[in-house]
Amino acid sequence: MALIVQKFGGSSLGTLDRIQHVASKVMATRAQGHDVVVVVSAMFGETDRLIRLANAITHLPDPREYDVLISTGEQVSMSLLSIALNAKNCDARSFTGPQIGIQTDDVHTKARIQEVKTDVLQRELKQGRVVIVAGFQGVNEAGEVTTLGRGGSDTTAVAIAIALKADECQIYTDVDGVYTTDPHLLSDAMMIPHISFEEMLEMASMGAKVLQMRSVELASRHNMPIRVLSTFIDGPGTLVTFEEKIMQRRLVTGIAFSREEAIISLSGISRRIGLEGLILDRISQEAVEIDMIAQNATAQDTVDFTFTVPRREYAKAIKIIEGLNKDLGSFAIKTNDKVAKVSLVGVGMKSHAGVASTMFKALGETGIGIQMVTTSEIKISVIVDETLVEQAVKAVHQAFELHKIPSPKQEQLVE
Amino acid sequence: MALIVQKFGGSSLGTLDRIQHVASKVMATRAQGHDVVVVVSAMFGETDRLIRLANAITHLPDPREYDVLISTGEQVSMSLLSIALNAKNCDARSFTGPQIGIQTDDVHTKARIQEVKTDVLQRELKQGRVVIVAGFQGVNEAGEVTTLGRGGSDTTAVAIAIALKADECQIYTDVDGVYTTDPHLLSDAMMIPHISFEEMLEMASMGAKVLQMRSVELASRHNMPIRVLSTFIDGPGTLVTFEEKIMQRRLVTGIAFSREEAIISLSGISRRIGLEGLILDRISQEAVEIDMIAQNATAQDTVDFTFTVPRREYAKAIKIIEGLNKDLGSFAIKTNDKVAKVSLVGVGMKSHAGVASTMFKALGETGIGIQMVTTSEIKISVIVDETLVEQAVKAVHQAFELHKIPSPKQEQLVE
Repeated sequence: MALIVQKFGGSSLGTLDRIQHVASKVMATRAQGHDVVVVVSAMFGETDRLIRLANAITHLPDPREYDVLISTGEQVSMSLLSIALNAKNCDARSFTGPQIGIQTDDVHTKARIQEVKTDVLQRELKQGRVVIVAGFQGVNEAGEVTTLGRGGSDTTAVAIAIALKADECQIYTDVDGVYTTDPHLLSDAMMIPHISFEEMLEMASMGAKVLQMRSVELASRHNMPIRVLSTFIDGPGTLVTFEEKIMQRRLVTGIAFSREEAIISLSGISRRIGLEGLILDRISQEAVEIDMIAQNATAQDTVDFTFTVPRREYAKAIKIIEGLNKDLGSFAIKTNDKVAKVSLVGVGMKSHAGVASTMFKALGETGIGIQMVTTSEIKISVIVDETLVEQAVKAVHQAFELHKIPSPKQEQLVE
Repeated sequence: MALIVQKFGGSSLGTLDRIQHVASKVMATRAQGHDVVVVVSAMFGETDRLIRLANAITHLPDPREYDVLISTGEQVSMSLLSIALNAKNCDARSFTGPQIGIQTDDVHTKARIQEVKTDVLQRELKQGRVVIVAGFQGVNEAGEVTTLGRGGSDTTAVAIAIALKADECQIYTDVDGVYTTDPHLLSDAMMIPHISFEEMLEMASMGAKVLQMRSVELASRHNMPIRVLSTFIDGPGTLVTFEEKIMQRRLVTGIAFSREEAIISLSGISRRIGLEGLILDRISQEAVEIDMIAQNATAQDTVDFTFTVPRREYAKAIKIIEGLNKDLGSFAIKTNDKVAKVSLVGVGMKSHAGVASTMFKALGETGIGIQMVTTSEIKISVIVDETLVEQAVKAVHQAFELHKIPSPKQEQLVE
């Protein structure tokens, strides 16, 4: 008998039929003898509906009240799921974040969990009940409702799993696992049975949006295995776990990509005044996210300096840079706001040379020009023209044979 | 400076425009220097929507979870109102029933308020804030959300007003006050400036559904004046207060009526076996509400016995009676399920004879047959054919000159 935390997202709870289906899945896990804590998101579309109501009143709704408003979405879905379970004679009780004691800091709309109280959870589990908890919400020290920001229900589930020392945290969603790349883009994409926390972080942050980043970080810190599963298709899903448990892996695990990027290159920056640091500082202060950064020193006294920003923040970034160019010195600015990022991810590449060269060769042979490169221990990212994303992903996927089913030996878990 | 509790019903909060309008009304009261606690219902239609969701899953939703579900309606409207007020620079905070500490008993879906904690309310009022409270909900000893049943927000408002020793509890609704009779039925109907708690109870229970009965009982026990006002039309509304404050009144205050009644007459019941008591007992046990009861003793050994039930429970009542007739004795049953009740209400009639005769004469002259009569100290009710309700109300309204504006002297309040 294990203790399992199961989280169901909004699309899994989008209709009453789906809520009934989720109830059946929870009962099936109970029938296997496991204790179950269920974390729910709001029904699909409900949070957006509530946000629209608030924004129709004012563009800057009071954050405390905004949290009170949008936290009702999860309260509706948790009680409906509990009603469905009880109607099927499965003893269940639902609780809000404040009722459980999901303590957060004071930052309304983007609160962080500080502690999950376990007394109510333990008491209800001891009674043999399924405990249903509203995701995405908590309570601050003053007793006020807080919310965790978009995707926060994943974090709620992982935090509860850690607090209860659960055996596994299962995240049910509308895809059946994590794929080598987006299957909508490439039909050859394969489901990945096991992936490390590190790889998952790299995949998640770059477009394979299956799990909320913060929840993976949290799970990683506490070694809580997460299983990504489909609510609608039965299957083992993808287990996100610590690297030591996965041996004899492929060199690379998957290919993430993101469109809607913009690249900004500055050349001829004087070395002395540290202008590149100043530029990054100023841009960050304006809350523009800088993603990739690369710097080359080709000349004696000047550096060339390239970075990317999300396309929606391109205009803002350019304005800041032009201001700095006027005030602080003269450098050349070259930009392209029609680019995309393609990233190869895999812990296997740490110990293997030649991954980058295989990738670049594949792109080169397909006639795809690389506008920028950055690398980390487990990731190589390139910037290409946005019209070439599909070709780039396909070429790299093929080059590393990600479309082939991994041999059982390779995918064996070390127990 | 006074402390005023203002309650806004669902139709007053039905759209975002209306919520903005309510915010303006609250701010107008603040601008007069008063402290304000606002109690809100769910937005119009929202509670019904949530109930439909629960009932689509099962006809017998778990009552604990049902309360968790439907209590979200008020949480949405309270936060939206607070967002609207804060956007207009009026400092406001919203609180759920549990957050305030509206302690109730354990009876989910029909809980009764046992205590209203005042610490949070006082703390927020001291900060100069408008305090917005979710109506219709509370918390039981175990910390679970409970709801008070339909119309419970009126009770929440009155209970808070009593706990805070407020100066007045204002109930904003979609009518501008309590009328001498339903203005939809009779355009001559007049708004009543002052009405006693007793009269209001008699009016409310009989079709003039402006205030929830329980809230009037509660206000009456604690001498908390209630003012019924329109959210949409400015005016003084109707003040419901204790009788001693109202002097030199009309003989009668208003005419209530209810359609959808059924009358059941039993004749030739033996006096000895106390069958009439047994019949009432048995019917009550089946949860059929009995309204009017009249008994005549025309013969030596038998009694005639007449009572009314809501029409929707007529079939159930008849089945019980026929069973008893078969088992316990033989009596004649005469029924009519196409009748209506018309009631004349007024504390003034206590000390004045001739009210009944004026009423019966007016009905007789209009050719309306009276099928049953019951009287209390401040009320005379008659049963008439349901097709004659309008004529009956009109005749009685005319006979007591309720269409005439009362002289200022008559309506003066004793201070």
